[in-house]
Amino acid sequence: MTAKSDEITLRPIGAVRSRIKEPVRRKRSDLVSEIVIDEDLTEALDGLDGFSHIIVLWWIHKSRRPAPVKVRPKGNPDNKLTGVFATRSPARPNPIGKSTVRLVRRRGNVLRVKGLDAIDGTPVLDIKPYIPGYDSVEGAKAPEWTRK
Amino acid sequence: MTAKSDEITLRPIGAVRSRIKEPVRRKRSDLVSEIVIDEDLTEALDGLDGFSHIIVLWWIHKSRRPAPVKVRPKGNPDNKLTGVFATRSPARPNPIGKSTVRLVRRRGNVLRVKGLDAIDGTPVLDIKPYIPGYDSVEGAKAPEWTRK
Repeated sequence: MTAKSDEITLRPIGAVRSRIKEPVRRKRSDLVSEIVIDEDLTEALDGLDGFSHIIVLWWIHKSRRPAPVKVRPKGNPDNKLTGVFATRSPARPNPIGKSTVRLVRRRGNVLRVKGLDAIDGTPVLDIKPYIPGYDSVEGAKAPEWTRK
Repeated sequence: MTAKSDEITLRPIGAVRSRIKEPVRRKRSDLVSEIVIDEDLTEALDGLDGFSHIIVLWWIHKSRRPAPVKVRPKGNPDNKLTGVFATRSPARPNPIGKSTVRLVRRRGNVLRVKGLDAIDGTPVLDIKPYIPGYDSVEGAKAPEWTRK
């Protein structure tokens, strides 16, 4: 990899609207928030309501920079130092967040979702439908710390 | 959203090494390929081999630009025109690919994986561990075309 030449430029397709204004570590599986997509992309959402769940990719705009190489998973001092790519730490070289959320409702360019762990004002990069079997794995293994 | 000011810049963390050199539509769940991570990020992979599966985010560098607003899912003329965010079409406003793959082996800065649908030379943006329960949904619903 060389500098500059391989840079990639993105532009947000929308933003999160939520009552949560600052980052918190706690999982918020019951939180209802909204994703407001740019109006000129409204039609690109047609058909999304055929899915119960969607995948949201977002820019973790408040992540710590530069990203550390190793972190303690979940910020827990009892967890051992782990490579950042083996964790879901928000501080990572390209801070892209990925959440699978319940699509509660689509109305025009606004998606109401449940369980999105992105704060108010977060730039949204992509929306994808969640496809069982393609996005899920049966019997996948993960270390103990992920279950605590 | 306004122009320019909200642009986001990424730099790839590595690249795909595969015998597949050109895009194909067919799913390749048995294909073994490699992800070569930049050497200065090698330690950021420590701990990844505790997971059986990983999520790869990559830049679909050969995607069609500008992205269409609607497409026929899977390129099948029998499928009706659908908003691009309701499909997994590679041509999308921010062409970020997301695959969940089996981690066969990690050796230094090289990950050998199974089932990655990204071609040789694809820039890789992020690696995340696949966490059952967080990344998977039981009983999720999706339209008929996803199962064909």
